[in-house]
Amino acid sequence: MIRHVALFRWKPEATDEQKERVPAALATLPSTVPSIRAFTAGADAGINQGNFDFAVTADFDDEPGYLAYRDDPGHRQIWTDVIAPVVAERASVQLQF
Amino acid sequence: MIRHVALFRWKPEATDEQKERVPAALATLPSTVPSIRAFTAGADAGINQGNFDFAVTADFDDEPGYLAYRDDPGHRQIWTDVIAPVVAERASVQLQF
Repeated sequence: MIRHVALFRWKPEATDEQKERVPAALATLPSTVPSIRAFTAGADAGINQGNFDFAVTADFDDEPGYLAYRDDPGHRQIWTDVIAPVVAERASVQLQF
Repeated sequence: MIRHVALFRWKPEATDEQKERVPAALATLPSTVPSIRAFTAGADAGINQGNFDFAVTADFDDEPGYLAYRDDPGHRQIWTDVIAPVVAERASVQLQF
Protein backbone atom coordinates (compact mmCIF):
# COMPACT_ATOMS: atom_id res chain seq x y z
CA MET A 1 0.00 0.00 0.00
CA ILE A 2 0.93 3.65 -0.36
CA ARG A 3 0.67 6.15 2.50
CA HIS A 4 0.60 9.80 1.47
CA VAL A 5 1.74 12.23 4.18
CA ALA A 6 1.56 16.02 3.83
CA LEU A 7 2.48 18.56 6.50
CA PHE A 8 1.59 22.24 6.31
CA ARG A 9 2.67 25.45 7.97
CA TRP A 10 0.07 28.20 7.81
CA LYS A 11 0.81 31.81 6.96
CA PRO A 12 1.02 34.00 10.08
CA GLU A 13 -1.90 36.07 8.78
CA ALA A 14 -4.21 33.04 8.25
CA THR A 15 -7.35 33.46 10.36
CA ASP A 16 -8.81 30.78 12.63
CA GLU A 17 -11.83 30.65 10.33
CA GLN A 18 -9.62 29.98 7.30
CA LYS A 19 -7.67 27.30 9.15
CA GLU A 20 -10.83 25.57 10.37
CA ARG A 21 -12.14 25.38 6.80
CA VAL A 22 -9.24 23.09 5.83
CA PRO A 23 -10.18 19.94 7.82
CA ALA A 24 -13.87 20.57 7.11
CA ALA A 25 -13.23 20.63 3.35
CA LEU A 26 -10.84 17.66 3.39
CA ALA A 27 -13.33 15.58 5.40
CA THR A 28 -15.53 15.41 2.30
CA LEU A 29 -12.88 13.54 0.27
CA PRO A 30 -13.23 9.99 1.66
CA SER A 31 -16.82 9.92 0.41
CA THR A 32 -15.98 11.34 -3.03
CA VAL A 33 -12.61 9.70 -3.88
CA PRO A 34 -13.17 5.92 -4.03
CA SER A 35 -9.48 4.97 -3.92
CA ILE A 36 -9.01 6.32 -0.36
CA ARG A 37 -8.64 3.41 2.09
CA ALA A 38 -7.92 5.49 5.23
CA PHE A 39 -7.78 9.23 5.84
CA THR A 40 -6.75 11.44 8.75
CA ALA A 41 -6.39 15.22 8.78
CA GLY A 42 -5.90 17.50 11.73
CA ALA A 43 -4.08 20.28 13.50
CA ASP A 44 -0.86 19.70 15.38
CA ALA A 45 -1.59 18.72 18.98
CA GLY A 46 0.84 21.28 20.41
CA ILE A 47 3.05 18.76 22.22
CA ASN A 48 6.34 19.86 20.64
CA GLN A 49 7.83 23.22 19.73
CA GLY A 50 8.80 23.88 16.13
CA ASN A 51 6.25 21.53 14.60
CA PHE A 52 4.34 22.18 11.41
CA ASP A 53 0.69 23.22 11.94
CA PHE A 54 -1.42 20.59 10.18
CA ALA A 55 -1.11 17.06 8.79
CA VAL A 56 -2.90 14.85 6.29
CA THR A 57 -2.30 11.11 6.01
CA ALA A 58 -4.10 9.05 3.39
CA ASP A 59 -3.72 5.37 2.46
CA PHE A 60 -4.24 3.76 -0.96
CA ASP A 61 -3.87 0.27 -2.39
CA ASP A 62 -1.31 1.41 -4.94
CA GLU A 63 0.19 4.33 -6.84
CA PRO A 64 -2.76 4.68 -9.26
CA GLY A 65 -5.05 4.97 -6.22
CA TYR A 66 -2.89 7.76 -4.81
CA LEU A 67 -2.76 9.52 -8.19
CA ALA A 68 -6.56 9.40 -8.44
CA TYR A 69 -6.67 11.28 -5.11
CA ARG A 70 -3.88 13.71 -6.00
CA ASP A 71 -5.50 14.63 -9.29
CA ASP A 72 -9.15 14.44 -8.21
CA PRO A 73 -10.93 17.63 -9.42
CA GLY A 74 -12.73 18.10 -6.08
CA HIS A 75 -9.42 17.78 -4.26
CA ARG A 76 -7.75 20.29 -6.60
CA GLN A 77 -10.63 22.69 -5.98
CA ILE A 78 -10.18 22.39 -2.20
CA TRP A 79 -6.47 23.03 -2.69
CA THR A 80 -7.09 26.16 -4.75
CA ASP A 81 -9.96 27.60 -2.75
CA VAL A 82 -9.23 26.59 0.85
CA ILE A 83 -5.63 25.40 1.37
CA ALA A 84 -3.40 27.37 -1.00
CA PRO A 85 -4.49 30.79 0.35
CA VAL A 86 -3.21 29.93 3.85
CA VAL A 87 -0.16 27.73 3.19
CA ALA A 88 3.29 29.12 3.93
CA GLU A 89 5.18 25.81 3.69
CA ARG A 90 4.38 22.21 2.71
CA ALA A 91 6.35 18.97 3.19
CA SER A 92 5.27 15.66 1.68
CA VAL A 93 6.25 12.01 1.25
CA GLN A 94 4.53 8.98 -0.28
CA LEU A 95 5.86 5.75 1.23
CA GLN A 96 5.21 2.06 0.61
CA PHE A 97 4.02 0.14 3.65
CA MET B 1 -5.41 8.29 19.41
CA ILE B 2 -2.31 10.25 18.49
CA ARG B 3 -0.52 9.87 15.16
CA HIS B 4 3.08 11.10 15.07
CA VAL B 5 4.36 12.03 11.62
CA ALA B 6 7.97 12.99 10.88
CA LEU B 7 9.44 13.76 7.46
CA PHE B 8 13.16 14.01 6.76
CA ARG B 9 15.40 15.40 4.04
CA TRP B 10 18.82 13.80 3.94
CA LYS B 11 22.06 15.72 3.54
CA PRO B 12 23.36 15.60 -0.05
CA GLU B 13 26.52 13.87 1.18
CA ALA B 14 24.63 11.07 3.02
CA THR B 15 25.64 7.69 1.59
CA ASP B 16 23.21 4.96 0.54
CA GLU B 17 24.57 2.82 3.36
CA GLN B 18 23.85 5.54 5.92
CA LYS B 19 20.35 6.07 4.55
CA GLU B 20 19.59 2.33 4.57
CA ARG B 21 20.57 2.11 8.25
CA VAL B 22 17.70 4.43 9.20
CA PRO B 23 14.71 2.14 8.43
CA ALA B 24 16.69 -0.88 9.69
CA ALA B 25 17.30 0.81 13.06
CA LEU B 26 13.76 2.19 13.37
CA ALA B 27 12.27 -1.24 12.62
CA THR B 28 13.49 -2.42 16.02
CA LEU B 29 11.31 0.08 17.92
CA PRO B 30 7.86 -1.60 17.70
CA SER B 31 9.28 -4.56 19.63
CA THR B 32 11.02 -2.40 22.28
CA VAL B 33 8.56 0.48 22.84
CA PRO B 34 5.32 -1.02 24.20
CA SER B 35 3.17 2.09 23.59
CA ILE B 36 3.52 1.84 19.78
CA ARG B 37 0.21 0.69 18.25
CA ALA B 38 1.21 1.00 14.57
CA PHE B 39 4.47 1.99 12.90
CA THR B 40 5.55 2.70 9.32
CA ALA B 41 8.89 4.06 8.13
CA GLY B 42 10.20 4.27 4.61
CA ALA B 43 11.77 6.19 1.79
CA ASP B 44 9.78 8.45 -0.47
CA ALA B 45 8.37 6.47 -3.41
CA GLY B 46 9.60 8.99 -5.99
CA ILE B 47 6.17 9.82 -7.41
CA ASN B 48 6.38 13.59 -6.93
CA GLN B 49 9.16 16.15 -7.38
CA GLY B 50 10.17 18.26 -4.38
CA ASN B 51 9.21 15.69 -1.75
CA PHE B 52 11.10 15.03 1.44
CA ASP B 53 13.19 11.81 1.39
CA PHE B 54 11.86 9.68 4.24
CA ALA B 55 8.81 9.39 6.50
CA VAL B 56 7.90 7.87 9.84
CA THR B 57 4.31 7.50 11.05
CA ALA B 58 3.57 6.02 14.47
CA ASP B 59 0.26 5.64 16.33
CA PHE B 60 -0.32 5.71 20.08
CA ASP B 61 -3.33 5.50 22.36
CA ASP B 62 -2.64 8.89 23.88
CA GLU B 63 -0.07 11.63 24.51
CA PRO B 64 1.76 9.69 27.28
CA GLY B 65 2.15 6.81 24.83
CA TYR B 66 3.69 9.14 22.27
CA LEU B 67 5.98 10.73 24.88
CA ALA B 68 7.20 7.28 25.94
CA TYR B 69 8.26 6.72 22.30
CA ARG B 70 9.73 10.20 21.85
CA ASP B 71 11.81 9.91 25.01
CA ASP B 72 12.66 6.20 24.81
CA PRO B 73 16.43 5.77 25.39
CA GLY B 74 16.79 3.29 22.51
CA HIS B 75 14.98 5.71 20.19
CA ARG B 76 17.20 8.61 21.33
CA GLN B 77 20.27 6.44 20.65
CA ILE B 78 19.05 5.69 17.11
CA TRP B 79 18.49 9.40 16.60
CA THR B 80 22.00 10.29 17.76
CA ASP B 81 23.89 7.46 16.05
CA VAL B 82 21.96 6.82 12.84
CA ILE B 83 19.53 9.65 11.96
CA ALA B 84 21.09 12.93 13.14
CA PRO B 85 24.31 12.45 11.11
CA VAL B 86 22.36 12.39 7.83
CA VAL B 87 19.43 14.79 8.45
CA ALA B 88 19.38 18.13 6.64
CA GLU B 89 15.76 19.01 7.43
CA ARG B 90 12.92 17.59 9.55
CA ALA B 91 9.19 18.38 9.64
CA SER B 92 6.83 16.92 12.22
CA VAL B 93 3.24 16.94 13.47
CA GLN B 94 1.35 14.99 16.13
CA LEU B 95 -2.38 14.88 15.37
CA GLN B 96 -5.40 13.45 17.16
CA PHE B 97 -7.40 10.96 15.11
